Parts: sequence; structure tokens; C-alpha cells
Amino acid sequence: MPYYIGDVIQDQNKLIARTPEKFRESGIDVQISARVEGIDPARGEVSLQDGRIFPYDVLVMATGTSAFVPDMPGLDLPGVVSLRSLEDAVRIKTWLREKNAKRVVTIGGGFIGLEMSEALSAAGISTTIIHKDPLPANRWDPVLSQMMLEELQAQGVKFVGGASAQGVEKGTSAPLRVLTDRGDYEGDLVLLAIGVRPDANLARATGLKIGTTGAIAVNFSQQTSIENIYAAGDCCESFHRVSRRWVNVPLGDIANKQGRVAGRNIGGRPMTFDGIVGAQSFRLFSLQCAAAGLSEREAIAAGFSPASHVAWGSAMAPALGMRKIGLKLTADRSTGRLLGAQAVGAAGAVGRINALSVALWAGMDLDQVGYLDLAYSPPFSPAWDIIHNAAQALGRSL
Amino acid sequence: MPYYIGDVIQDQNKLIARTPEKFRESGIDVQISARVEGIDPARGEVSLQDGRIFPYDVLVMATGTSAFVPDMPGLDLPGVVSLRSLEDAVRIKTWLREKNAKRVVTIGGGFIGLEMSEALSAAGISTTIIHKDPLPANRWDPVLSQMMLEELQAQGVKFVGGASAQGVEKGTSAPLRVLTDRGDYEGDLVLLAIGVRPDANLARATGLKIGTTGAIAVNFSQQTSIENIYAAGDCCESFHRVSRRWVNVPLGDIANKQGRVAGRNIGGRPMTFDGIVGAQSFRLFSLQCAAAGLSEREAIAAGFSPASHVAWGSAMAPALGMRKIGLKLTADRSTGRLLGAQAVGAAGAVGRINALSVALWAGMDLDQVGYLDLAYSPPFSPAWDIIHNAAQALGRSL
Repeated sequence: MPYYIGDVIQDQNKLIARTPEKFRESGIDVQISARVEGIDPARGEVSLQDGRIFPYDVLVMATGTSAFVPDMPGLDLPGVVSLRSLEDAVRIKTWLREKNAKRVVTIGGGFIGLEMSEALSAAGISTTIIHKDPLPANRWDPVLSQMMLEELQAQGVKFVGGASAQGVEKGTSAPLRVLTDRGDYEGDLVLLAIGVRPDANLARATGLKIGTTGAIAVNFSQQTSIENIYAAGDCCESFHRVSRRWVNVPLGDIANKQGRVAGRNIGGRPMTFDGIVGAQSFRLFSLQCAAAGLSEREAIAAGFSPASHVAWGSAMAPALGMRKIGLKLTADRSTGRLLGAQAVGAAGAVGRINALSVALWAGMDLDQVGYLDLAYSPPFSPAWDIIHNAAQALGRSL
Repeated sequence: MPYYIGDVIQDQNKLIARTPEKFRESGIDVQISARVEGIDPARGEVSLQDGRIFPYDVLVMATGTSAFVPDMPGLDLPGVVSLRSLEDAVRIKTWLREKNAKRVVTIGGGFIGLEMSEALSAAGISTTIIHKDPLPANRWDPVLSQMMLEELQAQGVKFVGGASAQGVEKGTSAPLRVLTDRGDYEGDLVLLAIGVRPDANLARATGLKIGTTGAIAVNFSQQTSIENIYAAGDCCESFHRVSRRWVNVPLGDIANKQGRVAGRNIGGRPMTFDGIVGAQSFRLFSLQCAAAGLSEREAIAAGFSPASHVAWGSAMAPALGMRKIGLKLTADRSTGRLLGAQAVGAAGAVGRINALSVALWAGMDLDQVGYLDLAYSPPFSPAWDIIHNAAQALGRSL
């Protein structure tokens, strides 16, 4: 029987129902609050801090990520919290309720920080976002991030771009004050949403190969460099089908797939995890934001010569109304191969990026994308969808 | 300069703005209300009913479709109308306004008849739909059509399934009465929405090759069997990439693409139209309905051995709420290749069918579809999307 280290719960919605007792009923021994001190791969043993030792035939590393915590004073003040685990979420909710919080200062304007502003707004709490770059969500093109910024402003979220947080101290009008090079901002809670790093410390100490990304290196069967140790989820790498490189993309759907592939291989029904295309989405109030594939910078790093085009249009036939959508496509100049796609819009952005994710998966070029057969109907698209228009316009420019 | 026969206006929204005069300003001579009597391909001449003769170097057949009109008495009564052209639409709107219409009887429960019930409902007019089959929209699986039926009923549309219309006569409580083998239904207007047939009469008379579908046969360059005569749109065939057969699918987006490909080839910048996968969608009040690829019946006719699975789920993560969606996938038993997809749901059905259309285009199998990288985010899908669940469940059953 394999033991699992870390978070094996694939569906957080079921977490409350699936206590260790519930797992035990299914014959699965879950040890919570059990800190692993070391792994001895030669003996096939996991030793816990409390002295207990668990032998294994097969081991799965599922250690996930750690929240990245910047080096600045005041982060030990009560009310300064990271956002990574379910425990963090419970702690934040309790704090907000107990302090009757009205304003949160979030350090980090990536998609997690942005999603939090929406969740807090729904709870009647306003947010100030401190972000190092001028615009939110750096993965997206500035013209698309500009749409997000306008939505934040329309929804009453204060976005302080191009600002570097330098510390947290006690506030005067509110319990906490975040100091930045572009002014100080007070709030009842300070949320650190600067990103996460794969938690590969135990893997490194065990002698497992760590990839250039800092995450655990695996093969297409989710096996690490030691044959009977597998890894799955945010702590390990995935093969990016567009860049043909191993990357670390800590997203829940990828973790789910890797977990199932690892389980299949351990259980004797072998299969491979054939990789990712970097598909991702989030909702920002009334906007859908989605992306897949490579940014221009990533494309250059992967050896391509990228060209891009941003198309604007409506997610429905203009005769039925306008639902503004922007779509950026990136392709390789020499082959016309689609390399990346980003969309932001009032509707239809996620569906379009999903269609383009499949096109990226299949390695399609702009000639194909420009004439794809999509499910046209005026409430959902013009006869020439923005996908067609963007692909044809980019194709003409190559 | 080529002449165009039929409807060259690609975007009906611009119709009013683009009168023949407007076209002439762009150097395009548009003759409206000009009935073609014959084409002489040997001389390269088109002769009109009024005696005028137009010589051509290149000719494009864009004759579209004719509404299918059943053989029954009473169809010549005022207020019995087909729905095909913009003129039909104008006639219907005028009639409804002038008669202060309250109820319309629609013969035909395909997607056009269903879309009409929504449009009429928005105008405060109720609809009775007479349909030959027990459930609407035959292309969709009965369990998905059942969802449509429930939506019709919830929206106050009367659906009379399994009924054969036998004639129209003057009514008593309303101007018109439709007689069926399942009762008689009165209304201010009777709409024939039984389908369309490719209008290939002129092509046939000209000696152009007609396909087994009854539509004009073309090659991948939209050329007919006579080198300098092209065809585009509903009057001609398209290559179906899944069945590998030539089909006639009269949909506006396909017509647009074929028109552009014909134009490119005529204009000396050759390109091919690489076919369709049968992607299609319509909105039915609060439901999105979409499909792509082959039904089981079509799959068998194309030489496959199909198996299908219908999955039910939510278009968003259940923790955020339920938005019911049903997805049917059909695949080939021997190869696992995806052959078709149908979805009906409160949200996300069109986006998912678009992603699956691209998968059909690329010829993917269920193993690939089951692990596609899609843009996961709880407002838009669970971590395992219904696409993954359906593909894996169908794969297990093969």
C-alpha cells in the first residue's frame, strides 16, 4: 500500500466530509498533522518528526507549494496572512469576521490577488491592491490588463500599480499599515498574494532530481528520479506541449490529472500524462480572463520568433448587442504555428481560450485556426468569430 | 470582373446600408430583382428573364436554399409564411404588427422553429410548435432534447410532438387553423420551419455536377465541375472532416468561409476550404444548445462503429453553484476516436462544443480529450471538466 505525503484531497469541496476516519473506512490511512522529517529511499522508509516510521513500497510526493513571502519587516504582525491552504482561508475568514473588517490591503496583483478582491467585495469588504507592475495580471498583454484595471476601478477596488511594498506596521485608522514607495495604505488585514513556490525541500533532501524550475523532476508517468517515488501536483514539473520544456504551473486541474496518472501507474494500469498548454482562467467581477500557450517572452525563450496581434470584437453578433472581447494571438513567424492566446471579455473569453487550448494541443497553425468550424449562432458569436478574425489578421502580418 | 448570382451580402446587419448604389461605389455592379433565366457556360453568358445578357470570365453560384414546403392544402392562405430570406422576415414582422398578433403556430421543431419561439416570446407573442417527432431538435440525443422541451414548457411555449400537420384553413378564434393528426391549433400566423433544400436548379440546368446531397458539387477550391464556375454557401457541398464525406450544411458561418475561399481563388491568391466538422449552436431562452461532429446514425452511415455516453454535470464548480449541463460524446469503438459531441446547458455548452469541435478537427481520440488542458477556474468549470469526465467514462466503456 502506498503512503501519500501532503495534500491528497483532490476536491476541496469534499474536504469537510472526508475526514481521516472517512478515508480509513475506504482502507486509506491518512495521517494529518504528521510532519515528515526524512525519507530513506534505500530502506523505503518515511520517518515522522514524532519518531514514527512508515515503510513503503511506493511513495508519492504531493507536497504542493509554499506561499512566497517577501523579505520585509512587519510580516509577523497579527492580521498579515498568506493565501495558500484551506487553513489560511479559514484563518482569513475568522479574522475578517471577528475584526468586522471593512478594508483589506492585498500585496500582489496577480490572478489570486484579483480573485480575492472579488470575493472580498461580495462580502462587503473593499480592497487596495499593491502591485509591482503598472497593470494587473502580468501574464496578459497590457491592453488586456488595462481592461481588468478599468473593471477593478468600476467595482471600487483601489489598484496601486508600480508600487513596491516595503513593510507592514501598526496603523492609525485601521489595525495595519502597508508601507510602499508610492504611499502607505491601511487596512484590517494584509493579504500576501505574491505567488507560490514549489515545495521541494523534502524531495531535495531525499536526493530526488529537481528541475531547473525548482520543482521535482518527473517523467511522463509522474515518476521521479527514484523509480518507486512518484510526484504529482504543484510540487512537480509538467511538460509544456508548446515550448517543449518542463515547467512548473501550480494549478488545481493539472494537479488532479497528475494525481490520477500517478495512481494509474502505481495501480498497474499504466498511462502517461501528455502535458499541458498553460491554459488558465479567472473571473474578475463581470469579466472573464483566460490565457493559454506562451507569452511572447516565453516564446522567445523557447526558441521561437513570435509575432502577435490583438483583435477586438463582440462575443455575440453585433445586431444582438455588444459584449466587448479582446483576443491576443501569438504565432511563430516562420511556421505560422499558434503559440499563445489571451482573452478578456464580458462573455465568451473562457470558451474561446478553451477552443484555442485544443488548437495549441494539436499544434495547429494560423491557416487552420482562421477557418476552424465553430458553433456559430448570433447570441454567441458573429459569423466570423474573433478567433477567425485574429488568426487571419495575424497570418496576414507574418 | 466576376458576376455574382444570388445573395452576396455576407453580413445581413449591413444590408440596409449596402444598397446596389453603395456596391457600385466600390466598383461592384449588383443587379437586384434580376432573375436569371439561363447560363451558357460555352459562351460564358448569363441571360436574365428581362432579356439582358451578362458575359462573364468567372461565375459564382451563390443561390442558397429554398424553404422546404410540404404538400398540404391551405398553404396559399394569407398569413402562412416560410422563413428563409430577409424579405420573409420583413413580411412576418409586418404581418404580426398589422394583425396585432398574439399567437403563432410554427410547423417544425428544428432549431429554426425553436429560435423563432424565443424571438416571438420576446415580442410578447406565444407560440405553438407542431413537430413530427416526440421531442424537439432531432439532431440532439433525446435526453438533451428533453431538457429543451422542459425549457419550452417553462417559457410558455406549447410543443405538440409526434404530430403531423395535414393542412391549414381559416380559423374561428384566430385567422388561421392548422389541422394535425393530434388536434387543431389556431393562430394569427402560421410559420413553416420544416427545413431548407439547396437551390441547385440553375446549376443543374447549366450542367454542373450535383452531389448526392442535391447540392452543387465543388472541390476544395470551391470550383464546380466547370472550371470557371465557382459555388459557395448553402447551395453547395462541404467536406465533412469526420465522416470524410461531402455534405450540405446550410449555415451562415460556413457560407461566409466558402465565399471568402472562392474569392481568394478567383482573385489569384489560392487557398483551400478544408472542410467542416458540423459545429452548430442555438439559444433556447435560458439554454445553450450546441453540437458538432456526427450523430450515431451518421457515424454508422460513415462506416464507424459508434459508442456514446451522456455525462451530466455543472458548468461551474459545484461549491459556487450548479449550472446544469449535459454532454453527449460519441466515439469509434475500435479506435477510440472522437466522432461527435452534443451539449445542452444553462451555461458553457457552446464554449465546450467549440473546444470539442477543434478536437474533432484535429482527429483526437478519447485518451487525449480526457486529459485536455482547459482553462480551469471555479466560476467556469470544476477541476475535472464535464469534457474530461465524459471522455473518460466513454473511454472506459469501449
